[in-house]
Amino acid sequence: MTMSIILALDFGGTKHSVGVVAQGGREWLAHGRVAATAGANATTDLLQVLALAMELLAGRQPSAVGVSFGGPVDFARGVVRLSHHVPGWEEVPLAARLEEAFGAPAVVDNDANVAALGEHRYGAGRGVDHLLYVTVSTGVGGGWILDGRPWRGAQGMAGEIGHMVVDPAGPHCLCGKRGCVERLASGPYMAADAAAWVAEDAGASGRGAILRELAGREPITGALLSQAAAQGDDIAHAVLARGARALGLGLGNAANLVNPQRIILGGGVTKAGELWWQTVRQTVAETILPEVEVEVVPAGLGDDAPLWGAVALGEERASG
Amino acid sequence: MTMSIILALDFGGTKHSVGVVAQGGREWLAHGRVAATAGANATTDLLQVLALAMELLAGRQPSAVGVSFGGPVDFARGVVRLSHHVPGWEEVPLAARLEEAFGAPAVVDNDANVAALGEHRYGAGRGVDHLLYVTVSTGVGGGWILDGRPWRGAQGMAGEIGHMVVDPAGPHCLCGKRGCVERLASGPYMAADAAAWVAEDAGASGRGAILRELAGREPITGALLSQAAAQGDDIAHAVLARGARALGLGLGNAANLVNPQRIILGGGVTKAGELWWQTVRQTVAETILPEVEVEVVPAGLGDDAPLWGAVALGEERASG
Repeated sequence: MTMSIILALDFGGTKHSVGVVAQGGREWLAHGRVAATAGANATTDLLQVLALAMELLAGRQPSAVGVSFGGPVDFARGVVRLSHHVPGWEEVPLAARLEEAFGAPAVVDNDANVAALGEHRYGAGRGVDHLLYVTVSTGVGGGWILDGRPWRGAQGMAGEIGHMVVDPAGPHCLCGKRGCVERLASGPYMAADAAAWVAEDAGASGRGAILRELAGREPITGALLSQAAAQGDDIAHAVLARGARALGLGLGNAANLVNPQRIILGGGVTKAGELWWQTVRQTVAETILPEVEVEVVPAGLGDDAPLWGAVALGEERASG
Repeated sequence: MTMSIILALDFGGTKHSVGVVAQGGREWLAHGRVAATAGANATTDLLQVLALAMELLAGRQPSAVGVSFGGPVDFARGVVRLSHHVPGWEEVPLAARLEEAFGAPAVVDNDANVAALGEHRYGAGRGVDHLLYVTVSTGVGGGWILDGRPWRGAQGMAGEIGHMVVDPAGPHCLCGKRGCVERLASGPYMAADAAAWVAEDAGASGRGAILRELAGREPITGALLSQAAAQGDDIAHAVLARGARALGLGLGNAANLVNPQRIILGGGVTKAGELWWQTVRQTVAETILPEVEVEVVPAGLGDDAPLWGAVALGEERASG
């Protein structure tokens, strides 16, 4: 009898990943990544991923294809709504395209929902029925597992914690509102706020010395901000703490509203250090009602959460 | 064959209701209300409701008892956690007490969850699978229906939108936080804010003339605030609009987070007039992401939502 194969695809904003696994397996039979091409569009993304998948499959026929896509997806129809990073993805019937290409059923969902499923099955959410997974990275996105299954909502948009308003008097967000969680807590926005401070202050206050020194050598990024904070820079601390409080407020609000058992945090910003985690956890504790209990823990699968979630999507379809 | 009877009980903060209905019926066989006694405690509440229920049952034996309780409930165990209004309700095993009294299975849940179920089965949520019901009254509380069933969360606390922080620089709430939805949007808090304004201003600004005149005759309540606003009072308008914006922000955040099809609003404050509704709806529209669609509609059952929800709880148990 031939081994049943699941093909897992992760379409990201800047890179794509492909994994091949035996049904029920926990180790990759084959695994690869590819950076998105310069000036990528939906067609180049699709061709890159198809080429890599064909190479990794090496002639094997998958029994199902699970897909994580970095943008809003109409799950029921298997149609990508758009990408906020790459042009040409508007209303692309990705599941249908992949079914044609691989001759197997395909299931597509957005990356936060898929990562939540990955953590639930294989990561920090094992054995937990109700959880919220939140990635704090270039953006802030979330996905729910309720009663052991992904909760996607009426338009597949559930989990959108990034644009929860937590400070109506806060800075303007690209979405048109003010004081969204993403505006205050995501890596690029925090980096931009710190860079604006450095440019404006120009050393006058004597504060942010470490940050200014590092920023003299390379552009300020979320990672550089964490590095400056770890070295004791006061401005880097302040920007990260403000982000951590905004995130904690959003998570606490979400915990009061849906009452999950566990909140799992992934993404680059979660590597910002112990002070960031303490601030997030303390703000959650101050925000939840006395009767609400929730754990806040780091993701277990790191950057592989969406790809393992795609495996889980594929397995459900293959056995369903 | 004897007709199967459902007994529905609603333990409120200031009044209690009891209904008797034939299983599958939509009309009360018997129905009554009683005001809570002065200096009420858990024992007097229970005795009042038992006496009224016995009277209305008139010797009939219910096949199940459904119960709405105005406070946090451990649904799985059928135990009241506490009442914020009436002493003595801490850890009362209400389901067990009622099963003993009536010789029938009893199901207890908090009033917002039960009202959500009532609206879903018999009111403004018929035919809708995913909804949020929010009561805006003395407090602000909410309940979810997801996939056609009540969503209660890990500790039965889901739906707590009242203490979502929507303005971290806002006024202090009794819960210890600042700028909670309930602090800004509930009737008594809005009335207190208006009364404080009247006392402080003392006519100096020339604003709030209608409100000051009405307040000279009776204490300012949420209802009086609506009355003043309907007559064109600028301060009453401003206080109600601030509450409507806070509520709209909370509802929009909730819609982004869980993506229900419909939000149903009940409670006294929803009678504050068209401007209040317009402000709530506009703020929701400004807060939700472009891909999120949600209707915001008035409750269909009014004050009877919890009692009809209790019927639904009882029917599920009777047939389960």
